[in-house]
Amino acid sequence: MARVYNFSAGPAVLPESVLASAAAEMLDYKGTGMGVMEMSHRSKAYQAILDTAEADLRELMGIPQNYKVLFLQGGASQQFAMIPMNLMKNKVADYIVTGVWAKKACQEAAIYGQANVIASSADKGFSYIPDCSDLPVSPDADYVYICENNTIYGTVFHELPNTKGKDLVADVSSCFLSEPVDVNKYAMIYGGVQKNIGPAGVVIAIIREDLITEDVLPGTPTMLRYKTHADNGSMYNTPPAYGIYICGKVFKWLLKQGGLEAMKAYNEKKAAILYDFLDRSKLFKGTVEKKDRSLMNVPFVTGDEAMDAKFVKEAAAAGFVNLKGHRSVGGMRASIYNAMPIEGVEKLVAFMEQFEKENG
Amino acid sequence: MARVYNFSAGPAVLPESVLASAAAEMLDYKGTGMGVMEMSHRSKAYQAILDTAEADLRELMGIPQNYKVLFLQGGASQQFAMIPMNLMKNKVADYIVTGVWAKKACQEAAIYGQANVIASSADKGFSYIPDCSDLPVSPDADYVYICENNTIYGTVFHELPNTKGKDLVADVSSCFLSEPVDVNKYAMIYGGVQKNIGPAGVVIAIIREDLITEDVLPGTPTMLRYKTHADNGSMYNTPPAYGIYICGKVFKWLLKQGGLEAMKAYNEKKAAILYDFLDRSKLFKGTVEKKDRSLMNVPFVTGDEAMDAKFVKEAAAAGFVNLKGHRSVGGMRASIYNAMPIEGVEKLVAFMEQFEKENG
Repeated sequence: MARVYNFSAGPAVLPESVLASAAAEMLDYKGTGMGVMEMSHRSKAYQAILDTAEADLRELMGIPQNYKVLFLQGGASQQFAMIPMNLMKNKVADYIVTGVWAKKACQEAAIYGQANVIASSADKGFSYIPDCSDLPVSPDADYVYICENNTIYGTVFHELPNTKGKDLVADVSSCFLSEPVDVNKYAMIYGGVQKNIGPAGVVIAIIREDLITEDVLPGTPTMLRYKTHADNGSMYNTPPAYGIYICGKVFKWLLKQGGLEAMKAYNEKKAAILYDFLDRSKLFKGTVEKKDRSLMNVPFVTGDEAMDAKFVKEAAAAGFVNLKGHRSVGGMRASIYNAMPIEGVEKLVAFMEQFEKENG
Repeated sequence: MARVYNFSAGPAVLPESVLASAAAEMLDYKGTGMGVMEMSHRSKAYQAILDTAEADLRELMGIPQNYKVLFLQGGASQQFAMIPMNLMKNKVADYIVTGVWAKKACQEAAIYGQANVIASSADKGFSYIPDCSDLPVSPDADYVYICENNTIYGTVFHELPNTKGKDLVADVSSCFLSEPVDVNKYAMIYGGVQKNIGPAGVVIAIIREDLITEDVLPGTPTMLRYKTHADNGSMYNTPPAYGIYICGKVFKWLLKQGGLEAMKAYNEKKAAILYDFLDRSKLFKGTVEKKDRSLMNVPFVTGDEAMDAKFVKEAAAAGFVNLKGHRSVGGMRASIYNAMPIEGVEKLVAFMEQFEKENG
């Protein structure tokens, strides 16, 4: 078996040891005589899997006791509706639009109330993060919303916006657990797990308790109320049990790596290898303002579409796959999440250097 | 490794060959150099997995071309809201309440319109299916709703209700693919896959095309519109990709067993072994009216709670697990889905005979 270096933006590479362990337990989880997929979610064995996953996540992120951890379904796209349905008490919210996902979240919120765009980087193709130090935050805004790391464009909020005292809600799908986070600065942190944590089909939402109430917009389905899930320990109905089990294994793996401080150091080292090369290359160049560069998603171009296509094709043949940029921006993108080993980035840069020599 | 006989009501036993194959492919799916969990849902390899799963399901069930097959998330509980939000054009629907799940579906629909209970078996603890040959179907009902097989109570509609021309919507979570079905008799068939098909976190909905429109109730989230998913081949956003892959393997397994006719014969044979024993036992007895017995879920009692508990405990020690009845009915329940081998039922009955000898 030859594993490739998989630079997919998501679903994305997972730690080999996690996959190997899941494979070994597929027919018999720890002597239960059944696999986790076959296990009643009401069993003691499964409850222990869920409880351990939550406890390990709380340890990794330092989640305060007044925040609930919910394991949900439907992807970030479903949260785009759940957030206003549950949190838009005044029917006003402010959105900072730094890419497609924040824009979609804002458009969905507009179904339920007034969704204001208080900042945007659409003017330059979302290639930067706007100055958010003094934004026109609405006096009656229920929350200020950001997509913290922009998967498609490769930007990240290195500093959180000044919300002028309003609650901050952040989609962290593509930077989840990539570095330490001060949960207290957020009202809600959420993300789909399929980039940095586990298989698609699980969303983790970390929400300050006082925001989880019965006071939701009229017509909110039972399954779309945070309270339904919070009151039932994420087991109101059958949860995406196998996905949560894989997430739990990744949490253990992260703890073993040294936690989020260690991951940050590792991710900075990996990203620097790629960005440093892009900055000295005469063929390839990054597309994002340097101050706003993501540690997770690195878009780059040659400036010539035919050359881009040649590079993507030859890279794939050499075992560096999924380097094609998102269809909305073209070029290339290397997603280098937690589970991408540093050797993958080093070898990719060596390949790019060779390609430049031959084609520059 | 000693596999147990797992009589869980769901998540439930899966075919060993399916699990073994998934384990073997965990780190490298067919030479792609990555596992399915790590695979971009926009890749050719994953699109082929999804397309093959849908094609195989269409073959198994003989799904007509004017029905869409959607792979969704959120469990049946989320469908309880999606169904009225999408289908209740007149804001009237009729529900036949034969258990907890139909009741919950009806209660959720009442958020969105007039949800009439036109028949119920609550009077006898949901131990039977009411006569549905001449019900007071509402003239302006958008649909008539049933839960076709009642997991908790062990009843099934052996005959579909006379809906007097109205569209029939059926939750088939616990009898999905257990026998042939005439899809044309339904407007919509749906179910969570975690009983008979795959891991929790995937819902399959089979919906007649003309019902999938933009005319939904105001405030319906984008993700809760069937049209969103139908227009995007179940890939509006990242689908529960790994779960769908396992479902696809189960579809292949079912085709190899001979399809749904063969499964019906096998399931009838398995159920008969257990029901015949219950009918001749002096210690154990079934709790359901004979004419309405489910092929999938077989509840039974001794009539003595202490004896029930003793049986469940000793059975588990002997390798027959998850036989405890649902907390709302007590006693025992053996769920004998497609993947439960006939030997499991034979050996369970032998164990019950021995237990009766020792305790009768």
